[in-house]
Amino acid sequence: MQAKSRIQGDIEFDRDGRQAGYLRAPLSRNTSGWGVTLIPIVVVKNGSGPTVLFTGGVHGDEYEGPIAVSGLARELTPEEVSGRVIMIPAVNPPAVNNDTRLSPADGRDMNRCFPGDPAGTISQMIAHYIDTFVLPHVDVLVDLHTAGHSGDSALSTNMHKVDDPALMAKTLALAEAFGAPYNVVFSGVDEFATLTSAAERRGIVTIGTELGGWGRVHVGGVKVGRRGVRNVMAHLGIAGGKAETDRPTRHMVVPGPQNYSFAPREGIFEPCNVVGDTVKAGAVAGYAHRVDEIDTPPLEVRYAADGVLWMSAGPGRVARGDVVAVVMTDYEG
Amino acid sequence: MQAKSRIQGDIEFDRDGRQAGYLRAPLSRNTSGWGVTLIPIVVVKNGSGPTVLFTGGVHGDEYEGPIAVSGLARELTPEEVSGRVIMIPAVNPPAVNNDTRLSPADGRDMNRCFPGDPAGTISQMIAHYIDTFVLPHVDVLVDLHTAGHSGDSALSTNMHKVDDPALMAKTLALAEAFGAPYNVVFSGVDEFATLTSAAERRGIVTIGTELGGWGRVHVGGVKVGRRGVRNVMAHLGIAGGKAETDRPTRHMVVPGPQNYSFAPREGIFEPCNVVGDTVKAGAVAGYAHRVDEIDTPPLEVRYAADGVLWMSAGPGRVARGDVVAVVMTDYEG
Amino acid sequence: MQAKSRIQGDIEFDRDGRQAGYLRAPLSRNTSGWGVTLIPIVVVKNGSGPTVLFTGGVHGDEYEGPIAVSGLARELTPEEVSGRVIMIPAVNPPAVNNDTRLSPADGRDMNRCFPGDPAGTISQMIAHYIDTFVLPHVDVLVDLHTAGHSGDSALSTNMHKVDDPALMAKTLALAEAFGAPYNVVFSGVDEFATLTSAAERRGIVTIGTELGGWGRVHVGGVKVGRRGVRNVMAHLGIAGGKAETDRPTRHMVVPGPQNYSFAPREGIFEPCNVVGDTVKAGAVAGYAHRVDEIDTPPLEVRYAADGVLWMSAGPGRVARGDVVAVVMTDYEG
Amino acid sequence: MQAKSRIQGDIEFDRDGRQAGYLRAPLSRNTSGWGVTLIPIVVVKNGSGPTVLFTGGVHGDEYEGPIAVSGLARELTPEEVSGRVIMIPAVNPPAVNNDTRLSPADGRDMNRCFPGDPAGTISQMIAHYIDTFVLPHVDVLVDLHTAGHSGDSALSTNMHKVDDPALMAKTLALAEAFGAPYNVVFSGVDEFATLTSAAERRGIVTIGTELGGWGRVHVGGVKVGRRGVRNVMAHLGIAGGKAETDRPTRHMVVPGPQNYSFAPREGIFEPCNVVGDTVKAGAVAGYAHRVDEIDTPPLEVRYAADGVLWMSAGPGRVARGDVVAVVMTDYEG
Amino acid sequence: MQAKSRIQGDIEFDRDGRQAGYLRAPLSRNTSGWGVTLIPIVVVKNGSGPTVLFTGGVHGDEYEGPIAVSGLARELTPEEVSGRVIMIPAVNPPAVNNDTRLSPADGRDMNRCFPGDPAGTISQMIAHYIDTFVLPHVDVLVDLHTAGHSGDSALSTNMHKVDDPALMAKTLALAEAFGAPYNVVFSGVDEFATLTSAAERRGIVTIGTELGGWGRVHVGGVKVGRRGVRNVMAHLGIAGGKAETDRPTRHMVVPGPQNYSFAPREGIFEPCNVVGDTVKAGAVAGYAHRVDEIDTPPLEVRYAADGVLWMSAGPGRVARGDVVAVVMTDYEG
Amino acid sequence: MQAKSRIQGDIEFDRDGRQAGYLRAPLSRNTSGWGVTLIPIVVVKNGSGPTVLFTGGVHGDEYEGPIAVSGLARELTPEEVSGRVIMIPAVNPPAVNNDTRLSPADGRDMNRCFPGDPAGTISQMIAHYIDTFVLPHVDVLVDLHTAGHSGDSALSTNMHKVDDPALMAKTLALAEAFGAPYNVVFSGVDEFATLTSAAERRGIVTIGTELGGWGRVHVGGVKVGRRGVRNVMAHLGIAGGKAETDRPTRHMVVPGPQNYSFAPREGIFEPCNVVGDTVKAGAVAGYAHRVDEIDTPPLEVRYAADGVLWMSAGPGRVARGDVVAVVMTDYEG
Repeated sequence: MQAKSRIQGDIEFDRDGRQAGYLRAPLSRNTSGWGVTLIPIVVVKNGSGPTVLFTGGVHGDEYEGPIAVSGLARELTPEEVSGRVIMIPAVNPPAVNNDTRLSPADGRDMNRCFPGDPAGTISQMIAHYIDTFVLPHVDVLVDLHTAGHSGDSALSTNMHKVDDPALMAKTLALAEAFGAPYNVVFSGVDEFATLTSAAERRGIVTIGTELGGWGRVHVGGVKVGRRGVRNVMAHLGIAGGKAETDRPTRHMVVPGPQNYSFAPREGIFEPCNVVGDTVKAGAVAGYAHRVDEIDTPPLEVRYAADGVLWMSAGPGRVARGDVVAVVMTDYEG
Repeated sequence: MQAKSRIQGDIEFDRDGRQAGYLRAPLSRNTSGWGVTLIPIVVVKNGSGPTVLFTGGVHGDEYEGPIAVSGLARELTPEEVSGRVIMIPAVNPPAVNNDTRLSPADGRDMNRCFPGDPAGTISQMIAHYIDTFVLPHVDVLVDLHTAGHSGDSALSTNMHKVDDPALMAKTLALAEAFGAPYNVVFSGVDEFATLTSAAERRGIVTIGTELGGWGRVHVGGVKVGRRGVRNVMAHLGIAGGKAETDRPTRHMVVPGPQNYSFAPREGIFEPCNVVGDTVKAGAVAGYAHRVDEIDTPPLEVRYAADGVLWMSAGPGRVARGDVVAVVMTDYEG
Repeated sequence: MQAKSRIQGDIEFDRDGRQAGYLRAPLSRNTSGWGVTLIPIVVVKNGSGPTVLFTGGVHGDEYEGPIAVSGLARELTPEEVSGRVIMIPAVNPPAVNNDTRLSPADGRDMNRCFPGDPAGTISQMIAHYIDTFVLPHVDVLVDLHTAGHSGDSALSTNMHKVDDPALMAKTLALAEAFGAPYNVVFSGVDEFATLTSAAERRGIVTIGTELGGWGRVHVGGVKVGRRGVRNVMAHLGIAGGKAETDRPTRHMVVPGPQNYSFAPREGIFEPCNVVGDTVKAGAVAGYAHRVDEIDTPPLEVRYAADGVLWMSAGPGRVARGDVVAVVMTDYEG
Repeated sequence: MQAKSRIQGDIEFDRDGRQAGYLRAPLSRNTSGWGVTLIPIVVVKNGSGPTVLFTGGVHGDEYEGPIAVSGLARELTPEEVSGRVIMIPAVNPPAVNNDTRLSPADGRDMNRCFPGDPAGTISQMIAHYIDTFVLPHVDVLVDLHTAGHSGDSALSTNMHKVDDPALMAKTLALAEAFGAPYNVVFSGVDEFATLTSAAERRGIVTIGTELGGWGRVHVGGVKVGRRGVRNVMAHLGIAGGKAETDRPTRHMVVPGPQNYSFAPREGIFEPCNVVGDTVKAGAVAGYAHRVDEIDTPPLEVRYAADGVLWMSAGPGRVARGDVVAVVMTDYEG
Repeated sequence: MQAKSRIQGDIEFDRDGRQAGYLRAPLSRNTSGWGVTLIPIVVVKNGSGPTVLFTGGVHGDEYEGPIAVSGLARELTPEEVSGRVIMIPAVNPPAVNNDTRLSPADGRDMNRCFPGDPAGTISQMIAHYIDTFVLPHVDVLVDLHTAGHSGDSALSTNMHKVDDPALMAKTLALAEAFGAPYNVVFSGVDEFATLTSAAERRGIVTIGTELGGWGRVHVGGVKVGRRGVRNVMAHLGIAGGKAETDRPTRHMVVPGPQNYSFAPREGIFEPCNVVGDTVKAGAVAGYAHRVDEIDTPPLEVRYAADGVLWMSAGPGRVARGDVVAVVMTDYEG
Repeated sequence: MQAKSRIQGDIEFDRDGRQAGYLRAPLSRNTSGWGVTLIPIVVVKNGSGPTVLFTGGVHGDEYEGPIAVSGLARELTPEEVSGRVIMIPAVNPPAVNNDTRLSPADGRDMNRCFPGDPAGTISQMIAHYIDTFVLPHVDVLVDLHTAGHSGDSALSTNMHKVDDPALMAKTLALAEAFGAPYNVVFSGVDEFATLTSAAERRGIVTIGTELGGWGRVHVGGVKVGRRGVRNVMAHLGIAGGKAETDRPTRHMVVPGPQNYSFAPREGIFEPCNVVGDTVKAGAVAGYAHRVDEIDTPPLEVRYAADGVLWMSAGPGRVARGDVVAVVMTDYEG
């Protein structure tokens, strides 16, 4: 039997056809004690077949996923589908409407809240609902992210290195089908509290994306995202057609912190490259400036590995210890 | 006789050699009643010759100018100079250290505060000092800006259309010497309270720049900025060498609001182009989305003119009435 | 043995006579590491007899209950009493002194925190103390609320529909004795984390009240509240006299969300009725306006059921999904 | 010649027909340097005849005026009009959208900012525009207000006592035509910086309104407001029909602070009456409670004059010195 | 004729006897549009004789002056007085009640607002009232301050070096009469916007005090303050008795910034001395630490002059440029 | 096996020599999703011998401990050591850099968060790491505190009364070795969630310190702190030399709340003594003033016990219920 949640929704996951509605999550405010936040959800089902869940807006300032998923949610008809497509384009509406990574309602990063808590704060409560009431219906999860205001990202999917070789192969194939220029395999990372980790614990084939950042809507990222969700449906046999891409996805790996460069002090960080550039370990990645001090020289930051620049610094102003560059190297399997 | 200011500085503008110090602007805080904000200033003078003023950091989240000007301020020696170079890389330290356009100390946009007020708030007080105690020494002003967090900009200089043909020619030549890919002439704009307008009222030859935006440090913008300040010194005969550029500057014009597109509602704005793209009047500039609402179609926004995209939307989330696209057209003189 | 709490109090619940003091709840602040919040509590006991607990100020902007309970706490003498009366007129002092529903110290709605946590935030800590150290002494709870800034309410008591017919009858009789114009039975509601639910889990006969709202002190609500606490004591035989009312209490029911109307969008909500009005399902309940947009027509909101308007919208400005009308219908037992 | 403003609008006040648009007031934000606030304005003109200006939303939490004026602005056609009707239903959009009296953009009460300043903060800039560019076209001003979150008001118009008997008579007639239950004459009040005072300085016949408060939308206040703006047009001969009311307007006077009662200390204020009640000087107006202190008796507050209660306290929690009651007495001319 | 103010008060300065009341300064708040801040004022007058004004609480976190002045205001009777004593123990109630130097209502330091502005923000409005309506009655001003949260001060009076030798002598004598351990003469300081400067512009004999700091109430500072206000009255012949002190006041001078030491960077500042210590130019005044960085050595700060330490750093954490030590040297006349 | 933590560090506790680095605690921010807070840690180990842990900066506004511990961490070499010294001078960097007792990242007092939670907020996460990954290596803990902004303290160590006589004797000896003027034994206190209590639960010999307060850096407190950490190493045989003090430590006791005095109301508290003064039960400890009210007499607060004043009030402005005086009496064993 399932745990209780204070969140209410009308979706019947087993019903054929298109259902579009909102999950009503209670959010007591000073001016609305019985107030709610409304989480949009659209389910399109037709016959039997696998279930894919597309999520966007777990963080509130990552736009390409919500645009791609909400577009699909408006357009997709049961006739196009064999199986089931669950679309939640704005998992975290308080953050989406506040245009921030963290929820303004509880100061939490929802992607550090899984598997959630039905008696916790709003981010924990939503995480719990997704984990407990949505994920059990799901075979495949694509959770769409970008680098938000934290940086820029080479357009890519990403996935954890998983132990089961069959599952690993399936996940690589899923990523390849999505069709971003790069797919990044993480290994040795503790990501216990993320949505993708929660999905993996339930045996769901899971990928994430990084489709831009710098707080802007990435023209190319939207294109890759829109195509990607269609490609995934085709790959899974849920929709017809076949996966389309410009070029084959290049599989990469980021084995751990050894591929990261960090800001050595607070100040303005001037990078030397943009994401997608080929870089060398030891080369200058950028400079940390103190523009309001006279005669304080900038500090050099160097790349930690050979490879391709996956993530670059976001805001011009960084804090000590912030990640300013992540290098990915080719995945050897 | 000059008006008084509560800001104190030790620079003697008429002394030969290099002077580097701070303007001490009083900023009473709750934990430091006699607190100050320190504005870095470096002056390098040698013999006679024109005076150029390079300013950055009038807004606190525009990085390329402060990087270029503070670099020059560390490196430039009197031996290289015939004339005088005044460098203020962070005119607005409270905003620079807060990483925001507006000053956190008084909520003001300093570039709407000129000619300032010595008894006003900190932004007004600094504006007054620059206008009253620095500008009278200046022949040429280059005030370096970017689109900050408000958008992205095609790398460019800009200038007002001025009535005096000789001054107009001089300003066009100065912009051309700076060597950005584009130079944009504004006409018919009321910019009374900006630093560049204040400079023009004093008969100073004046240009601004737009060297990036999206809240990131633009790799190419830094390059153009660093080269531009050197080019300007060469052009004015203050330093040796000659102005270098990749290609000739293309002179453009933005005659007024008729070249702007605005957000029709609050939501996420997906642009169709990036700055520098050639666009057509009436073509779709982008879409305003409501990703947390089901079945709400995006609204189309269209370009208002033929030309090249100069400014694009900044944050993914826009408010009703925000500028989301500015098109520039070729300048016919 | 009872769980520990960091809250300290001197009240001996079993002592005859009047005791008046404060619970000292530790609240570490930046300027007072050993600071506390002081929760007023008055106990009047005389011989044997049932124990009633009157609580107010669980939310900080609901005034009629605190006024009635603090008045009783100043006036009630042991001579008047057979049994025990526990009075806590301001359960949540940080919220009361901040004039808000939520506690400014932790951002929590205390009435979503029961049964609390002795190691949690201040609202959780107080909830735990009430649940663990006060409720075990209690036979009957009257928890006085209003609609706060969220809306206005028809003057009423309320109660959950409970399964045990004897307890149900006792609770209905208690509500009738309180003597508000209406008594509302909720059914099918998940209210796990409220004070009244916590009391019910302990077998306590429990009612709540709604005695006004709109952020104002309701002249009639204060009158009903003052009379109600006296009526309850008379009804239970704790004090002499008999329950007085203007007219018999009308028992009503709100079976669930089907009796609610919601705001269809953000904007100003103009209601068509005030609480206590008789309304019809399908009739216009009000209009959602966008007064800062030209030519945007208001959206109609309609009533969801026939009956009497129990709750109306609070602030003029509402968010999408806010409750703007709740209709109650006659209770058939 | 008129002073400059940074606010731009397209309305041509002398053109016949209906014009609906926005004044674009520049409001530099951290994420939109060229951002604006959009002030809706509708002008309906037909032939010659007097000009009336209806304004609402000078304060952001006073709803009845904006509802009435925006409704009229949507509906009114040139055919109905002889003369000119200018309608600005939301003069202060930052405050309206923030649901507060004060503007969140500069912390100002716009109704303390007239005649404004084109180089000041946003509230001063808008005040200046209204005063300098709109009022010169106006013969009659009706500025619609309520008591906002500060209190409740008997439904009323109000006006200053003016020295010119003819103007006084005209103003009384205008108020009577509006048709609220009461019309209140202020005398001896320094209101230099309000919109109505600014209008009077230009010789405009001017009234204000108080149509509710407590932060709610007053059902009766909306009705009186809607009818009132139509009545005024009929009275002035701008529109046909004749002024309708339920009963004749009762003219009252509030001669000065001697009719006010003030909160003697911080705490919860329990009033004894609601607006419209007849009250006696020296009778208890209410009680100031300290519900979080044991054994602190409430302080009595008494009425300062005989008459009818015009304004009552707003929020339950008041500060020392707040106005908690204003009594109006019959106007003797 | 006097300029207008929106502040109202009932004090008749020319009436004999004791008058105690409040100046009502309008402070429109979101929940109280007609709200005020109440400034306590007590005037005790008897016959002819000079007028002294004692002010405290111009800054909200400087306690010794308000304690001394409010105590005198409670106790002083007309019988004790020949002349007039005006006492305003809390000139800036919004700051006093917020426990901050700056006013929370407008973010201003009131002691940078003189001579004020009747149409400005609340701090400017109060400054204007004091300057325009109170100072004209005054012969002698004692404005009591401390170092607040900015630092600690040796117990002292202070004064500006004035040009008129007779006025200079009178002021030195007044300071000596007050009887603090030290009296500090400032010279060459631009203090245009302070209360004491405003008083000097009106020819008033004026001193200030520094009676402690560090945000605490200084036991010795209260004693010196209480005695000082009595001593001043005796010295002026307003009250009987004679000025009492423990030891003669030592006259010192702080000629300008050359006696100050500044924090060279942000961090924790460890001083080597406390106020009143004798120090040597070039000796170590303290160390600027970075306790959250490993292996970053503290920076030494040295004294700028020989003398006695007048002011020391306040909070442990300082910003770059903050004053951390001010040395006073013996005054030679 | 140890529980997991999301905090990462490179220190190998069993390695000989000096290791200096940072614990990287993940702190997702709106502008740095992969941001961290860096906790400095230095370990100096040489051969076998006991392990002492010195901690500072659990609260962010207590400076003397961080100064003493970071100084030791810079200077201590393996050659000086027999055993192991672990130094964490800034346990709580978000609070240290914000200069506040509570963490600005989660609003928590970290010294109320032990034993912590690896999935909790940042303060809970750090507390958990210290408890789970550091304390198991430790024999002796000295956790350095002051009274912060809450008050001032007589320079002292402190300890809990523990049941085991041998452990009690060891702890008293440790405190005596530290060599502060006073050592205070607490008894009967519930301090479950503090760092020192967490250490005691692991059988670690534990003392705390109070080395100043009032938000300033105490010159004498730094001296005692620096000497104390050296003395403790000497006492434990970890370093050579012998413990040095000015005078023998006086052992005192604070048995519970009966030795505390509390503020009876909100206002400015004027104390009559400074810490270290000998005081008598019933004597006036100070006065609670209302300086912004005329004719409101101050309330007297009296001492609750005979002894020496250990803690005095901190900020001048106190809230009702705040601790304003704590008296310690001689410890009789």
